[in-house]
Amino acid sequence: MAGVCGRSVLVTGANRGIGLGFVQHLLALPNPPEVVFATCRDPKGQRAQELQKLASKHRNLVIVPLALCLVADTEGSEHSPPHLASAEVTDPSSIKAAAASVGEHLKGSGLNLLINNAALLKVNTLDNETLKDMSKVYTTNTVAPLLLSQALLPLLKKAAQGSPGSGLSCSKAAIVNISSIGGSISSLIGWDVIELVSYRCSKAALNMLTRCQSLGYREHGILCVALHPGWVKTDMGNAAGHTPPLTVDASVGGMLKVLSSLSEKDTGSFLDWEGNVVPW
Amino acid sequence: MAGVCGRSVLVTGANRGIGLGFVQHLLALPNPPEVVFATCRDPKGQRAQELQKLASKHRNLVIVPLALCLVADTEGSEHSPPHLASAEVTDPSSIKAAAASVGEHLKGSGLNLLINNAALLKVNTLDNETLKDMSKVYTTNTVAPLLLSQALLPLLKKAAQGSPGSGLSCSKAAIVNISSIGGSISSLIGWDVIELVSYRCSKAALNMLTRCQSLGYREHGILCVALHPGWVKTDMGNAAGHTPPLTVDASVGGMLKVLSSLSEKDTGSFLDWEGNVVPW
Repeated sequence: MAGVCGRSVLVTGANRGIGLGFVQHLLALPNPPEVVFATCRDPKGQRAQELQKLASKHRNLVIVPLALCLVADTEGSEHSPPHLASAEVTDPSSIKAAAASVGEHLKGSGLNLLINNAALLKVNTLDNETLKDMSKVYTTNTVAPLLLSQALLPLLKKAAQGSPGSGLSCSKAAIVNISSIGGSISSLIGWDVIELVSYRCSKAALNMLTRCQSLGYREHGILCVALHPGWVKTDMGNAAGHTPPLTVDASVGGMLKVLSSLSEKDTGSFLDWEGNVVPW
Repeated sequence: MAGVCGRSVLVTGANRGIGLGFVQHLLALPNPPEVVFATCRDPKGQRAQELQKLASKHRNLVIVPLALCLVADTEGSEHSPPHLASAEVTDPSSIKAAAASVGEHLKGSGLNLLINNAALLKVNTLDNETLKDMSKVYTTNTVAPLLLSQALLPLLKKAAQGSPGSGLSCSKAAIVNISSIGGSISSLIGWDVIELVSYRCSKAALNMLTRCQSLGYREHGILCVALHPGWVKTDMGNAAGHTPPLTVDASVGGMLKVLSSLSEKDTGSFLDWEGNVVPW
């Protein structure tokens, strides 16, 4: 799997769950990236200890502070430590600051791979969804990937321009949006178990964004794809009140294998951790 | 087309474009509804004159004030008269007040048909979409239909319970979400002409909401459907800078014919103004 992701990768929501799994797998590759940027809201907080431990061992791991969601409570949320103030909203200027910091670290070279992984889930029903939760979940799961991609676009373009060949690949330049089969409009899988209207709507919209990005960024040499990681043993996966079947290791290992196999024909597609096409 | 929509209908964004067209067509039916509720932001404003004129002729037309979007400017917007203050946000309590007012008018009977038509469009590109516009468009086009459906659910249930037969139909109880083929993730139609990321994402999410509503409200006897009205000669249709091919009359006439034909098997589907299935 050497060269799956080029010389540099950025993973959001990297302090736990699937995000942390991506960082661990990338660092353990036979030919690891020269630099792995791991973003999380509070790099010095208790919830980033695992990431800090990794950084003390791996000089190619750079932790970047980035807050992508507004949090006032913790219920059913992937990224909402109780000590956080509700002032930590998605802030376009904080996204720009993070992108600038990444650019400085790269010292003139581009960013090959952006993995938009950070996400929020609220265990609401059709009857009790609120304006506040609909907005928070959409901002985190859909708008933040758009804004971060915009901010990192110059670095992604630079990576594409600096890579040989005319096709698209994840080792050249790519945006990977971690979506969910929960965002599949046609399947509406799991409705009887958990309704999750805000989450489903945000992921359907993220899939639309991925398609838009694939058309808009193709000319820049950037591949764009939406991935369903499977139902994984994480805080979010557990929110449904059942035991998810998939380990983080199996999910992330599968997704990295899928990413290494992608080419021009795959841009704009929606695939699961085993490479199967997921219906819109 | 008598009986297409039962005894009572509510149309949002009814002061112009497709919303006004629905009101005109409904009032002109051989057997018009006993009451047509037409919501608009500012019933006494200049932009509601057409609706006021209609109300002076038709005693079964009731105009209900309802503000569904935050507006600070008018660029490319379906519903943003320049005189409006930016304080007019989607306000769950204003939605509840409108629902209460509708309930009072109905004096114990239910609401047969809710047409979520009000929508906002911003002529942005992938590169210049902003957090603000993404949020405004989503709130108006996706969250408002969810909240209004929640608020009117008791009246829709009442209409379903008061209608004979076990199947679903628009004359019994229905929620019609006016979507757009622009929200079709698989087709991504018109991308080369106009990118509209915020609009496309909001309509893909509205399609997901429609599917969720169709599963959640089926047991209450409520049919739910998403409609693509075609590319229509309205302020919004003109925003792309080309001349839309379809008149409001043809679009609304077609949609009402489609609505009159719907039954149980159609709930949760995405159809155009001619009744063709639109891909997700």
